[in-house]
Amino acid sequence: MSEGVPFFDRVLILGLGLLGASFGGAMKAAGLAERLVGSDLNPSHLEEARALGWVDSRWDPRAKPEAFDLVFLAVPPGQVGTALEGLRPWLREDTLVMDACSVKGTVAVALEAALGAHPGLLPAHPIAGGHRAGPGAARADLFAGAPVVLCPLPCTSAESRLKGQRLWEALGAHGLWMTSEVHDRQLALLSHLPHLLAYTTMSLAAARGADLALAGPGFRDATRLAQCPAALWVDIARENREALLPVLRDFQGHLHTMMKELEGGEGAGLERRFHAARELRIRLQELP
Amino acid sequence: MSEGVPFFDRVLILGLGLLGASFGGAMKAAGLAERLVGSDLNPSHLEEARALGWVDSRWDPRAKPEAFDLVFLAVPPGQVGTALEGLRPWLREDTLVMDACSVKGTVAVALEAALGAHPGLLPAHPIAGGHRAGPGAARADLFAGAPVVLCPLPCTSAESRLKGQRLWEALGAHGLWMTSEVHDRQLALLSHLPHLLAYTTMSLAAARGADLALAGPGFRDATRLAQCPAALWVDIARENREALLPVLRDFQGHLHTMMKELEGGEGAGLERRFHAARELRIRLQELP
Repeated sequence: MSEGVPFFDRVLILGLGLLGASFGGAMKAAGLAERLVGSDLNPSHLEEARALGWVDSRWDPRAKPEAFDLVFLAVPPGQVGTALEGLRPWLREDTLVMDACSVKGTVAVALEAALGAHPGLLPAHPIAGGHRAGPGAARADLFAGAPVVLCPLPCTSAESRLKGQRLWEALGAHGLWMTSEVHDRQLALLSHLPHLLAYTTMSLAAARGADLALAGPGFRDATRLAQCPAALWVDIARENREALLPVLRDFQGHLHTMMKELEGGEGAGLERRFHAARELRIRLQELP
Repeated sequence: MSEGVPFFDRVLILGLGLLGASFGGAMKAAGLAERLVGSDLNPSHLEEARALGWVDSRWDPRAKPEAFDLVFLAVPPGQVGTALEGLRPWLREDTLVMDACSVKGTVAVALEAALGAHPGLLPAHPIAGGHRAGPGAARADLFAGAPVVLCPLPCTSAESRLKGQRLWEALGAHGLWMTSEVHDRQLALLSHLPHLLAYTTMSLAAARGADLALAGPGFRDATRLAQCPAALWVDIARENREALLPVLRDFQGHLHTMMKELEGGEGAGLERRFHAARELRIRLQELP
């Protein structure tokens, strides 16, 4: 590491969707990597990522193992085990291994099941992305200004923590350290819930024959997340269901209270609630 | 009317928030009005709208009545009756009177209660706006490309329908004709529901101590509507509660079904639902 910024000679990216391909682009743009090797279950993703220059070559797990310096795992949480098959002989003690999954509890279990108590294991979740999927939507600046949640395991070495933090800082992101439990509870509310609400709103729109010509910019913003890949978000919801179901039940409780106040016709209680909700949303707007 | 575009010598705008002030600006920019007179319960709105040039002068309902050619009513639905007090002597048979309320059924009743079966009455709802409120947020091009729902009453003359349609076309909007019932049912789903979901999500975020540093762009988009003025949206929800409550109950039903599938752990049903929801959202994205 020169001047604290780590450099990785050989990097493997598993999963070349939006996040994986963008990570390749970001590492190249920041000059942090020499050779980028990639892999994806979908052959057209791999081809496209190579053609666009997000990775240099394809990983062949059956070739003679040669150690990687960094492995970045950007697959849906339910595919972590499969994606890591055959990887173990390609790791050194100090190979940094990070994932990018939106769920951390079940993924940490899957990572350790596949790789053992590897000192280079640093579960991560960059909170960046968008509803557009695939390497064609990737951007080298995807992580600039984004928070990255880092959830170290008992096996994670101090050196890996430092290397991981500096890597993300070099990509313009800022690390936030917390346990998997806190991450999963927070993201259930701040990410998984809004996705489910967007899918539910569009389901209802279909069932009730909504006239989409009457949909304004508010409806479009409120449902944008329903454009996200369905299989990925079913996977995330299922992997995080222990944290997500209590959030959904709470949501239903809050909505039920609002409906009762609306039925009762008394506006003061409703206005207090809307007002407090608005204050918090304005506070969010004012965050950097 | 020259070349089919109507011209209005004396225009009154009641309510100088975002919609009312933008209407003044749009009328001036399109060269459709000679003199714009305005009124607002909030004296600072009136002053700001005059200073910004959205209206020329203040309406004094106690002055000697002089007929208006057009009245545009841009107040919350619950304030329609109050806003129209004293207006009747200022109307000619052919004075076009349009409102801009997000609810049409109860507003039509309030309009006729205040003005009688006036032939110039043409209830309207331009689907444009934003969460920023007040004359300072107004824009002369707010209605460009926007749909405007027009809900004529039995008393509305054919001439008023034509004049109204041509006026909105001259402002760059396109008229969609329907009954108040259809409007209120459609907007309950396409506008009032997403507002309530956004307020509910932020209420829940406050109650559960959400860490807003972890909120990504998806959460921001999904909750943007919670920045809308609380009192206005309580008023809209209450005025449209007959159409809105069944939509909210249906929403809870759909959400409950998704939760049961998530609890059951079987992903196929959930994926079918997410997939169908996504298809409809993509269709919306592809609309002009």
